Amino acid sequence: MRMQKRTIEWRDGTVRTIDQSRLPWETAILEMKSCSDVAEAIKTMKIRGAPLLGVAAAFALALTAYHSKRKSRKELVQELEKAAEILRSTRPTGVNLFWAVDRILAKAREFSGSAEALAAFVVEEAKKIADEDAAANHMIGKFGAELIRDGDVILTHCNAGALATVEYGTALGVIRAAWEQGKRIRVIATETRPKLQGARLTTYELKRDGIPVTLITDSMVGYVMYKRLVSKVVVGADRIVKDAVINKIGTFTVAVLAKEHGIPFYVAAPKSTFDLTHNSADVIIEERKPEEVTQIGSLRIAAEGVDALNPAFDITPIEYVTAIICESGILYKKDFDKFK
Amino acid sequence: MRMQKRTIEWRDGTVRTIDQSRLPWETAILEMKSCSDVAEAIKTMKIRGAPLLGVAAAFALALTAYHSKRKSRKELVQELEKAAEILRSTRPTGVNLFWAVDRILAKAREFSGSAEALAAFVVEEAKKIADEDAAANHMIGKFGAELIRDGDVILTHCNAGALATVEYGTALGVIRAAWEQGKRIRVIATETRPKLQGARLTTYELKRDGIPVTLITDSMVGYVMYKRLVSKVVVGADRIVKDAVINKIGTFTVAVLAKEHGIPFYVAAPKSTFDLTHNSADVIIEERKPEEVTQIGSLRIAAEGVDALNPAFDITPIEYVTAIICESGILYKKDFDKFK
Repeated sequence: MRMQKRTIEWRDGTVRTIDQSRLPWETAILEMKSCSDVAEAIKTMKIRGAPLLGVAAAFALALTAYHSKRKSRKELVQELEKAAEILRSTRPTGVNLFWAVDRILAKAREFSGSAEALAAFVVEEAKKIADEDAAANHMIGKFGAELIRDGDVILTHCNAGALATVEYGTALGVIRAAWEQGKRIRVIATETRPKLQGARLTTYELKRDGIPVTLITDSMVGYVMYKRLVSKVVVGADRIVKDAVINKIGTFTVAVLAKEHGIPFYVAAPKSTFDLTHNSADVIIEERKPEEVTQIGSLRIAAEGVDALNPAFDITPIEYVTAIICESGILYKKDFDKFK
Repeated sequence: MRMQKRTIEWRDGTVRTIDQSRLPWETAILEMKSCSDVAEAIKTMKIRGAPLLGVAAAFALALTAYHSKRKSRKELVQELEKAAEILRSTRPTGVNLFWAVDRILAKAREFSGSAEALAAFVVEEAKKIADEDAAANHMIGKFGAELIRDGDVILTHCNAGALATVEYGTALGVIRAAWEQGKRIRVIATETRPKLQGARLTTYELKRDGIPVTLITDSMVGYVMYKRLVSKVVVGADRIVKDAVINKIGTFTVAVLAKEHGIPFYVAAPKSTFDLTHNSADVIIEERKPEEVTQIGSLRIAAEGVDALNPAFDITPIEYVTAIICESGILYKKDFDKFK
């Protein structure tokens, strides 16, 4: 398997990641020393991608523990709970962040030992979450690649790549694994307005790896399918609930078009994205500021003062999904029934 | 009916129009004195919108005739034929330009009289085409408004407004007419990447008229329909053939989503857009330069050197269309059978 520097790393009380808001123009490293540094980077989407948000939140708690001055285990747990609140208030839709925070908090509460030992434990647990994410992505790639045939043209939306995870990627992990197996595939990447993750991040990642990629606007998805230029769709997920896949705004549009054209629609996501105690009606769809729609960078693109909607995610009912690829294997429609 | 300055005007050997590439930032008037001035403005999309392209081409021939130094009728006809070739080579997909050029050329060839009289005739014929377009739009508005109910939220794609025509608009003509009848309606405008006609032009036009409008990205169409925020879709057309409506890229995606959600999908277009001697397979879909996708304004939004597709239009099979609104009335599915 190809070696790759991780998207996020722990280094002695500092968390280092790539500032994704500056790609593809600049590869700037962001160094974070506190939970609020991480929370701010999440809110402003310098860090994004559901699995990465889980790992980033885990490292944020690790930073809190590592730099804590608290003398007792109990005080440190309280400090971690406060940090958890800050993290939970960043972005409401993706579940991995909540999952990682809950996992660390639950273990911290059960921990018996000194504050110092707990701090070391939290750092180790966060590193473990990062390692597990990396391993999950490689397994997703392995399973998912079985679905990909030589000659396939795979459409993907947003960025579910190495940049959205610790390394390798979910949807792009599937594509990478198929490519590494020698399958001659091509990728169509949607630009993914408003934040342009497809244009900025997916083309950057694939070009770096030498995987052929063609960029289209979101408005062209119907046309490329009508023209029979797409054989499969593979996307990531921000939360998988009993009845739906919640993912980047535009995913549902792609799913409807795939169904209309009889094109398989695959979702690739680690189990940390699964939230099978909830339905789509329970999920808060984050509404971001309208300026992300009325402006591109600093350029206003609409009449002054115009209203805009800006839901960051949409809801794809599970009926539209051909299969979900996770680190345990491939789940087909018959398996979704067990979600309910 | 509300008075409105026309989008394009003839003034003694000069054609004046709004430079649409500079909206909404600046209302700059473009003065054109020759056929090649007009052809250049069409190629660079300073002038755009199928009905307006028809009128602009007619005025381009009027400029040729008006400024001609030819002494004989025959020579002038030859000069007009050359000008027609330049116009036909600008943009291949919309049919109104071809229709207008053919109409004037056919009449010029049959004309018996001096070169001077022919020149005057061509100018009058071009003005007539402009007047007919204005009248057609108002009739489209009148018929189309019957389909719109109080409280409707109408989604429109691209700009099929006053700016795409001589005045009033086709899809936006329907919306204007309903609004002028006192129906309390709202509009959702898709931004329409890559050239952002929805963001730049539709919000500008509607805001100027005080009609409530909300901007969304093209990727949000599925979500707003899923959320039941849309009651009807009304779009324009660049060419209506026997089996399909050809319109701005993204239209087909909207049509598929409308069908999936049981939302009526209306096309508003004058009969100069009808090309019922052809099928969709006969139509050349214009491919514009990839930089319109990989850049927004001067900002590169993708990895350097990435490939991009840029079809300017897509094909919506007629089965997806609920009705076509033209100046003669409303055509329903049963009427489409007569196209074949």
